[in-house]
Amino acid sequence: SAYVAVSQLLGLTLLVTTGAWLGCYRGGVAWHSPLQFNVHPLCMVLGMVFLQGDALLVYRVFRNEAKRSTKALHALLHGLALLIALVGIIAVFESHRTKGIPDMYSLHSWCGMAAFVLYLLQWLLGCGFFLLPGASFSLRGRYKPQHIFFGIALFALSIAACLLGITEMLLFNIRDSYSRFVPEGVLANTLGVLLVAFGLVVGYVLTR
Amino acid sequence: SAYVAVSQLLGLTLLVTTGAWLGCYRGGVAWHSPLQFNVHPLCMVLGMVFLQGDALLVYRVFRNEAKRSTKALHALLHGLALLIALVGIIAVFESHRTKGIPDMYSLHSWCGMAAFVLYLLQWLLGCGFFLLPGASFSLRGRYKPQHIFFGIALFALSIAACLLGITEMLLFNIRDSYSRFVPEGVLANTLGVLLVAFGLVVGYVLTR
Ligand code: HEM
Ligand code: HEM
Ligand code: HEM
Ligand code: HEM
Ligand SMILES: O=C1O[C@H]([C@@H](O)CO)C(O)=C1O
Repeated sequence: SAYVAVSQLLGLTLLVTTGAWLGCYRGGVAWHSPLQFNVHPLCMVLGMVFLQGDALLVYRVFRNEAKRSTKALHALLHGLALLIALVGIIAVFESHRTKGIPDMYSLHSWCGMAAFVLYLLQWLLGCGFFLLPGASFSLRGRYKPQHIFFGIALFALSIAACLLGITEMLLFNIRDSYSRFVPEGVLANTLGVLLVAFGLVVGYVLTR
Repeated sequence: SAYVAVSQLLGLTLLVTTGAWLGCYRGGVAWHSPLQFNVHPLCMVLGMVFLQGDALLVYRVFRNEAKRSTKALHALLHGLALLIALVGIIAVFESHRTKGIPDMYSLHSWCGMAAFVLYLLQWLLGCGFFLLPGASFSLRGRYKPQHIFFGIALFALSIAACLLGITEMLLFNIRDSYSRFVPEGVLANTLGVLLVAFGLVVGYVLTR
């Protein structure tokens, strides 16, 4: 549908905008370097937003494929998203250790960690109920609405965590010039708006 | 139901926590004073989260009342929420003008203003479609699912805007001690978690 096309356009713009921000204003991305922190936002936007969002859309996009195939793709994309998000989490913890910054003090880190841990849990529950042969048909039926509600809620929480991370990064780096509408601030705000728009469109498609 | 009871408990805790934060650490609330800014978070949490959330629950809580009455209550509570939110918005703009701080530069202000303006629009559309006698039954039926999707999405965006506001306030006021887990930081983070929990419970009730 047109909405799916718009979501993919927004999703790609999201990645490009994140790359442009980190590349043009934050010195780029590298492991084992002072730039290791920048791996964090890149992986989180790619994993917890873009790939998670596309995994959610699988059943809607491939309506006419076999359920076996769409289910495998849904689970695989979420698994890939989890792996990339894990790399992003390791990057920020290593970068904090290198710089001697305490862990888990901020509202962003609380919301982000909650989103990540619950996302991992949701993935395990999804595999347990829908993939393992043990779960009965009626058990699957009772779990399914919970799976869908918490899936959409976690997607929203992931986007909220990204918005908080963007705000923190701007206030850490360009505190004094942010209120003068410098290009980096406007670009990062735009990234935030794109994240919200991507969430809205994916949510709209899922609830039609 | 038990979920509605939990939502109201969370909602009241939300208001108490906001009051405790502003009262114990931010000097309290007053108009025409350097404390005018503090009217902003108080009104936004009360209007855009607590009252909006309770307005959304009206049709679920009063299942057995006449539709005329629940509809009026739903519209009135949203109207009250809008008025209180307007006071909160005026407070922050006046406080910015007094202190010479530029307007609308932050991601928080962009998301917050979008949430407020779209909330006002949703209210006008709700009145237009569901209250005025002009709209036909089929028109109401076609608008209703859009009204529900955008209503829930705006509620989520309002909560996200509050989380961003909390993060900004902490980084403006306790930038250096935030990472040392000072009580104000932990209290404000807890307020953020309570906002997310309130949103989750209200969302869960609405989608059952
Ligand atoms: C769902 C996505 C995200 C998750 C799950 C997440 C998770 C986390 C976690 C758990 C920490 C704490 C690390 C520590 O205490 O050592 C953290 C820190 C941080 N993150 Fe994220 N993050 C996400 C997205 C982002 C994005 C998109 C940005 C920036 C654009 C960002 C910026 C930061 C910053 C600046 C810190 C260091 C300050 C702090 O601890 O709050 N995060 N993140
Ligand atoms: C990792 C986190 C996961 C999240 C956030 C998530 C989220 C969602 C969402 C939002 C839906 C509704 C999709 C729609 O209505 O089109 C859904 C459906 C579903 N998911 Fe997941 N999911 C996750 C993992 C898994 C896993 C690992 C499996 C195992 C195969 C799985 C199996 C299913 C099934 C069977 C459905 C129902 C499709 C249908 O019959 O309409 N999910 N999931
Ligand atoms: C849905 C709820 C909220 C909305 C709609 C909202 C809206 C706004 C708007 C439009 C501005 C810009 C004012 C200007 O440019 O002159 C602003 C500023 C601000 N708000 Fe909020 N706000 C909300 C909740 C909160 C909360 C809960 C807090 C704090 C706990 C907060 C803290 C701030 C701060 C610190 C500013 C000044 C810095 C800035 O312009 O970003 N806001 N808010
Ligand atoms: C101001 C913002 C508003 C928001 C965010 C909002 C949101 C919502 C939501 C989320 C629902 C679904 C409730 C449920 O499923 O139990 C709903 C239902 C409804 N709202 Fe609103 N609403 C707003 C204003 C209005 C106004 C002004 C009216 C005019 C009377 C109105 C009339 C209705 C009606 C008739 C329903 C359908 C109830 C039903 O038949 O189940 N809304 N609204
Ligand atoms: O005025 C109304 O319109 C909707 C619905 O009847 C339209 O199909 C509804 O619930 C009302 O109270």
